[in-house]
Amino acid sequence: MPTFQTVRGMRDLLAEEAETLNFVIGKARETAQLYGYKEVITPVVEPYELLSAKSGEEIRQRMFIFKDLGDRAVALRPEFTASIARLATTALKTEPKPLRVFSVGNVYRYDEPQRGRYREFWQSNFELMGSNNPEADAEAILLTNSMMKATGLKAYAFKIGNIGVIRGILNQEKVDDKVQNAVLQRMDKKEYEEALKLVDNGKCRTVLEGLLELKGDTPFETAENIKNYVAGYAEAEAAADNQMEILQLVTANGCPVRSVEPAFARGLEYYTGMIFEVNVPELDIALGGGGRYDRLIEVFGGESTPAVGVAHGLDRVALALQVQKTCLPARGRKTAVVIPVKPELKGEALEIAQMLREAGVSVEFEVMGRRMGKALEDADRRRVDYAVIVGERELKDAAVVVRDLAKREQATVQIAELIDKIRPKKRK
Amino acid sequence: MPTFQTVRGMRDLLAEEAETLNFVIGKARETAQLYGYKEVITPVVEPYELLSAKSGEEIRQRMFIFKDLGDRAVALRPEFTASIARLATTALKTEPKPLRVFSVGNVYRYDEPQRGRYREFWQSNFELMGSNNPEADAEAILLTNSMMKATGLKAYAFKIGNIGVIRGILNQEKVDDKVQNAVLQRMDKKEYEEALKLVDNGKCRTVLEGLLELKGDTPFETAENIKNYVAGYAEAEAAADNQMEILQLVTANGCPVRSVEPAFARGLEYYTGMIFEVNVPELDIALGGGGRYDRLIEVFGGESTPAVGVAHGLDRVALALQVQKTCLPARGRKTAVVIPVKPELKGEALEIAQMLREAGVSVEFEVMGRRMGKALEDADRRRVDYAVIVGERELKDAAVVVRDLAKREQATVQIAELIDKIRPKKRK
Repeated sequence: MPTFQTVRGMRDLLAEEAETLNFVIGKARETAQLYGYKEVITPVVEPYELLSAKSGEEIRQRMFIFKDLGDRAVALRPEFTASIARLATTALKTEPKPLRVFSVGNVYRYDEPQRGRYREFWQSNFELMGSNNPEADAEAILLTNSMMKATGLKAYAFKIGNIGVIRGILNQEKVDDKVQNAVLQRMDKKEYEEALKLVDNGKCRTVLEGLLELKGDTPFETAENIKNYVAGYAEAEAAADNQMEILQLVTANGCPVRSVEPAFARGLEYYTGMIFEVNVPELDIALGGGGRYDRLIEVFGGESTPAVGVAHGLDRVALALQVQKTCLPARGRKTAVVIPVKPELKGEALEIAQMLREAGVSVEFEVMGRRMGKALEDADRRRVDYAVIVGERELKDAAVVVRDLAKREQATVQIAELIDKIRPKKRK
Repeated sequence: MPTFQTVRGMRDLLAEEAETLNFVIGKARETAQLYGYKEVITPVVEPYELLSAKSGEEIRQRMFIFKDLGDRAVALRPEFTASIARLATTALKTEPKPLRVFSVGNVYRYDEPQRGRYREFWQSNFELMGSNNPEADAEAILLTNSMMKATGLKAYAFKIGNIGVIRGILNQEKVDDKVQNAVLQRMDKKEYEEALKLVDNGKCRTVLEGLLELKGDTPFETAENIKNYVAGYAEAEAAADNQMEILQLVTANGCPVRSVEPAFARGLEYYTGMIFEVNVPELDIALGGGGRYDRLIEVFGGESTPAVGVAHGLDRVALALQVQKTCLPARGRKTAVVIPVKPELKGEALEIAQMLREAGVSVEFEVMGRRMGKALEDADRRRVDYAVIVGERELKDAAVVVRDLAKREQATVQIAELIDKIRPKKRK
């Protein structure tokens, strides 16, 4: 007897759950079109070498890795970025910059399952390659805002930072790159004390300590305080200026920014500048995030290319919509069942069903050969709009009986007029 | 240095290829709605035990099998049916019949790559559970027809058979089930002589030999000849009658049936009745196929439930559309670039870009900080409809310059009138 459960950490999406996820995927794709991102579809199974090249140790340990029948070391993608970087250094290498690339699909991480975190999940991924201007950074945030808004999500807000502020200080204080990564990883986990302990240089530690404590009554005030605080650390100053400019661009365009955070770090070691996340109060877990990673394409053997990207957790967005009890827009498609009153009429009934489908009506054909009463009862339970009853007497007059299941009314309708009777009117 | 190639048998879909596949996926989903199939999303990674329970040895040997970090034997789904059967015996167990379930997504088989055959591919899968009436079988063919037609595919045609004809003869001649499966597997590979050699019973072999040679000038004639030929084999007769009724139902509703084939078998051992495939002349490989498998749910420990299903190879359909040079319907979305004439205006320019996006225009914002000439040249190469040029002088009059890149004309336009200028008019 086979196993009746999904693999631990994986799950089935049924009914509204599937519908909501598909709705969110649709909004991601629509956003890509509105912002001029071209969609690419890359494999779920990629060379292990490719997927591990860029990822931090943390993600590497959480990958589904195996050998295929040709003894190749492969893995299930834990995100899209490595695949897009592969494309950027191969098939898309000669494309003019800026290059805007969109992907959407299923990705895999061996995480401890929790609410909103599964081992199979869905992401939309946007990469903008070729620009190091703040308007490129702003675009990653703006398109995330457009997408969240389009789904009908409420009360979401952005957290913004710039990894260049901390890195600028650590660089100028000559802290080793490996230590820098370790510091940022601890900060990502909000283990600030442990992070600071990793820094040998006492002055540097004190400066960082002060930075982490900076606050402001508004995101602008925090950004301003950070700018002032890092005076003298040239690289950190530039990062703080850049952070301020991005903040201005996105708030001027309606992005709800909740905070600018001096201690904000994101798990991936490769970020070099702006980083951000979007959250809703109902969930502990970010709905999306991204940032700038100017060294990424180099890591994959390509030419040095500034790049900024964002990934959205689409099943998390779907979960947030469900938690917020957001109604999806009604499809507007009318539904019908078509029922022949006796088996001999199934051919005629099927032709009527096909006619309605070609006109855009969703039709469930009565395939159970049930009696009329049973079939109507079932249609009622399925909340179908109309039952089209195909009987011999009416067929002789080129007509059928149409029953409005909500109103519990029925009438004889000419087949030639059936579509107009059932199909919703086109918008003017 | 990481690997720059996809894993053997996997591939990237770029530009038109990605667009065409997404178009076909959209048509599959639309067809599901028109026929009343509810979508479910099941995991790509399933227990090995589940996936191997039903599949023939042939598919089992071509699965991507591995152990996850929890030492579970798992595999990438080679098709959807096992996952749907799992649902039918668990979460959907109490749903009223008929139960119509739709899935679409990526599936994996370790096949020798060839044109139209990859190790990662896309399927749409329709299952109708609960009915053993021929109108249920017809529905699998009809919805396939609706879907192929909706994509714009030309010259596709159906091949229909009924595994019950051969099984009926073999059963009545008391041929062992294992031998039956072996016979059908050989037939599926068109190795008819080898198939017949497996049958010890001389009379049975002669009867089969004659059956395989049956032909007709039309599918109906073939179906009629089969009916007559199997007289005396009760089970085979019933299957032949059923085949005729299905043929009548689907041809009456416009399905192009190229042939009814007495020797038609499909690789999967579980079929019990009608089987079919859809093909185009341009490809050697079927675009889709399915059939009846009344024992499936039982295999998964559920109650005996008649069922009929079909899977479509969506990337094959996309390939066929490309080979046939079918143009996808134009999206109708207008495209624009928005260019600030100097960096100080990027804030204003970005607000105009956002306004256009909110009105449904696809906007690429100039993020490269290039001079006007360069930026316009690039927009030209990208075949954008309009360039919106944001300059200081025009902004003072609440206006911008709009350049029609195809017509090579430009005019000053009030910002308040910009959307009407650029956005395609709504249909009446």
